[in-house]
Amino acid sequence: MPQKVNIAEKFGLFDEAWAPRIVGEVNGVQVKLAKLRGEFTWHRHDDEDELFLVTSGVLRMRLRDGDQVLEAGEFIVVPRGVDHCPVAETEEVHVLLVEPASTLNTGDADDARRLDRLERI
Amino acid sequence: MPQKVNIAEKFGLFDEAWAPRIVGEVNGVQVKLAKLRGEFTWHRHDDEDELFLVTSGVLRMRLRDGDQVLEAGEFIVVPRGVDHCPVAETEEVHVLLVEPASTLNTGDADDARRLDRLERI
Repeated sequence: MPQKVNIAEKFGLFDEAWAPRIVGEVNGVQVKLAKLRGEFTWHRHDDEDELFLVTSGVLRMRLRDGDQVLEAGEFIVVPRGVDHCPVAETEEVHVLLVEPASTLNTGDADDARRLDRLERI
Repeated sequence: MPQKVNIAEKFGLFDEAWAPRIVGEVNGVQVKLAKLRGEFTWHRHDDEDELFLVTSGVLRMRLRDGDQVLEAGEFIVVPRGVDHCPVAETEEVHVLLVEPASTLNTGDADDARRLDRLERI
């Protein structure tokens, strides 16, 4: 039977930044939660669009043509192939992501924070 | 260039209940917003999973094996083939949906609220 997911509760289960956790699946696409602190790395995903929905804090999404600054209750879809660099404007930012299982957190970038396997919580 | 979407702002653009609006697209799946009032109809979607994320109000999701009651910040994925009947517990409930473009709001049910085409806002 389908069970509801409380987003804040799930965020209480981990602390690591830039390490998305899987919390659901819908039509073959995963729902993930991530904590962001500081600045990530410029990267893109050649084959996957990525939805970022901010649930707390302020997210600056750097894009080549200018930044988008998102508060809680706002989302952005970064289409495949589009360079982006997420930056936490507040100390910590919580985001819900909708993206395929195949999406590498670091995309095409050579970055030590790359994770080849995500935990399901 | 990708533009952010403010969910509350989009909800300000329409009033009709049980008539989802399209507000985004990610990996071929649509992001929709819907206002719910009262009780919907029992239905299922044979080929599509449906994610309901509550952004305000209280949603009772009736399921054959028992109800799930969701508040803001909670989501549920109703898998394809699973009978469900959404009910607004509070006067009005706002939900964000993630589901394929092909998803009929009324699923397999014969209900006058069926919409064959959704507006994009």
